[in-house]
Amino acid sequence: MKKRIKKIYDLVDDDLDSIILYNSTKPHIDLSFYYVTGLVNGEFEGSAVLIYPDQTADILTSKLEEESAKKADMPVTTVGKRDERKTWLKEKFQGMKRIGVNSTELTYHAYMNIKEATDAEIIDISDVIIEARNLKDEDELKRLRKACKIASRVAEQMIDFIEPGMKEYDLAAEISYRMRKQGGSGDAFDIIASSGPNSAEPHYTAGDRVIEKGDFIVLDFGSLYKRYRSDITRTYVVGEATKKQKKIYETVLKAHNEASEMIKPGVKGETVHNKAAEIINSTEFKGRFTHGLGHSIGLSTHDGSGLSPSVDVTLAPGMVYTVEPGIYIPGYGGVRIEDDIVVTEDGCEILTDANRDLVEL
Amino acid sequence: MKKRIKKIYDLVDDDLDSIILYNSTKPHIDLSFYYVTGLVNGEFEGSAVLIYPDQTADILTSKLEEESAKKADMPVTTVGKRDERKTWLKEKFQGMKRIGVNSTELTYHAYMNIKEATDAEIIDISDVIIEARNLKDEDELKRLRKACKIASRVAEQMIDFIEPGMKEYDLAAEISYRMRKQGGSGDAFDIIASSGPNSAEPHYTAGDRVIEKGDFIVLDFGSLYKRYRSDITRTYVVGEATKKQKKIYETVLKAHNEASEMIKPGVKGETVHNKAAEIINSTEFKGRFTHGLGHSIGLSTHDGSGLSPSVDVTLAPGMVYTVEPGIYIPGYGGVRIEDDIVVTEDGCEILTDANRDLVEL
Repeated sequence: MKKRIKKIYDLVDDDLDSIILYNSTKPHIDLSFYYVTGLVNGEFEGSAVLIYPDQTADILTSKLEEESAKKADMPVTTVGKRDERKTWLKEKFQGMKRIGVNSTELTYHAYMNIKEATDAEIIDISDVIIEARNLKDEDELKRLRKACKIASRVAEQMIDFIEPGMKEYDLAAEISYRMRKQGGSGDAFDIIASSGPNSAEPHYTAGDRVIEKGDFIVLDFGSLYKRYRSDITRTYVVGEATKKQKKIYETVLKAHNEASEMIKPGVKGETVHNKAAEIINSTEFKGRFTHGLGHSIGLSTHDGSGLSPSVDVTLAPGMVYTVEPGIYIPGYGGVRIEDDIVVTEDGCEILTDANRDLVEL
Repeated sequence: MKKRIKKIYDLVDDDLDSIILYNSTKPHIDLSFYYVTGLVNGEFEGSAVLIYPDQTADILTSKLEEESAKKADMPVTTVGKRDERKTWLKEKFQGMKRIGVNSTELTYHAYMNIKEATDAEIIDISDVIIEARNLKDEDELKRLRKACKIASRVAEQMIDFIEPGMKEYDLAAEISYRMRKQGGSGDAFDIIASSGPNSAEPHYTAGDRVIEKGDFIVLDFGSLYKRYRSDITRTYVVGEATKKQKKIYETVLKAHNEASEMIKPGVKGETVHNKAAEIINSTEFKGRFTHGLGHSIGLSTHDGSGLSPSVDVTLAPGMVYTVEPGIYIPGYGGVRIEDDIVVTEDGCEILTDANRDLVEL
């Protein structure tokens, strides 16, 4: 992926001889390894890719994954024992003075291996990696679109499935199954299927609570598709919604709509968050929106950036963020509505197109 | 989990003031955080646990996960902004001279945060963490047993499900669904459902190949249960097996049985691997067993140790390893039979109890 290597070097404000992306054992894989190689299949534990300013690259992997690695159209070296890996690093680093690493996805152990193999200065360029990955290219958007489509169709299908008497984990099982049947390769993250009072916990997953009439049901899930992830949340009411439930839902939906409408190039991420927060805080539900409005999504569910007061980012075409306002009332329940939105040249496009009006099941 | 903190300090050959287990963003979570806290629910991105020689501990987390963290019965501090986290670290590290870290699960970025907060010497104790986690206690074995039972039942159920005309990913979807319906909380790793020639690739996952009569079907999967993972592989033949298929299957099964029978305290992991390799290499399938015999399993699928020539370990009660010999013939197909086995006081016990005789579907 020469264009992605170029993108990274164009953003680097330093004179580097190379950048190494070095995986450890799962789950400690640097997802940027997949970004620069474009690979889809393979685990690549202990593998590395070295990228150079002239946009060439070298992959180091094991015999077991040689065939998978070759699909990257980059030179591949395989090593067996640990010593051979050290030798390879030493040879490649020969004569280099400044080497970039991605500190947020490199283990300290792998860093020490790199240090052992070279006297070069090690420069942390993780900010640049996040910035490059935050601007999705056409191939990435294609995969994200598909991942979003899979999740959207399942969100709509679940409306006919949910019934009182089911358990939360029945819903999680069904969501996971249906995403795979639509062509997804797995869950993007632990599925949240929360009901009744559990819906007030934003990070609840799914338990054995039995669904009852009157419950809020919050389903928060996403599909993996060729290593890219979607992330959608829909909230339903089992039976007829009470006045209070309607009020909560409408407040969240208003915050969602008005914040989403602000998304376009040049706008600060923080400003979009503040819009949603203001809308919620101007109602009786003040203080009940307890997290950031959204996070960038791509190879990782939390891809390094966000729409939040603690992230300094100016929106640009190709960025993809979740927009997920919520209201959480402990002991009572909660509502969250979440979509994945790509910034376009003159505004934005919602990639998760499932219906978001209140559904009374 | 005082007993686990004690276990770690008993193994440390150094005079440490504390050990910090510090999570970054998913997937870069130190699974040892769950080991010492015993927590099941919660993502704990950016959270940390500090453990002390007197078996006390301190948890640092965000407001969002405060309630989840409190279930650990350890003091919990919540922080909002990044600066507050630094202040907390500085205060806790005050007066300390030697601090342990788990380099294999700590990002280099998090390591730099620690360095910024203290002048203490930072000691890598990842070997000790692996050693401690490799000796499972009763509570861990209980969870592993359940994860293995879930996977075993599904392996047996799949016999009635597989039919020519289905696609590999139909099998993966079904396996995932059935594990959840049995009480599992998700896939332990990407499910492998390979058929025909694809079964010759040990790390293949699942694609859209249509299953045909005469195929080998290799299903390699595991369930998550309360953060612990199982890992089972069964190979089936669609229709009547040929003489060659039977020969391959019987060779792998013989290697599996004879290697498993050797497992008991005091035996070297390498010796168990060599037994399986010898059996396969004494047949016409010499050289077709291309990976290590097994890996330790627990909170992580590859939990840091292995039955392999490249790992120096002497078996002891409480260790849990996969035993997974295989024969892979490129372009033709492959067979792998895998179980999870716990070392007991006087031998071993196979935790994945699904039938492992040849099944012709």
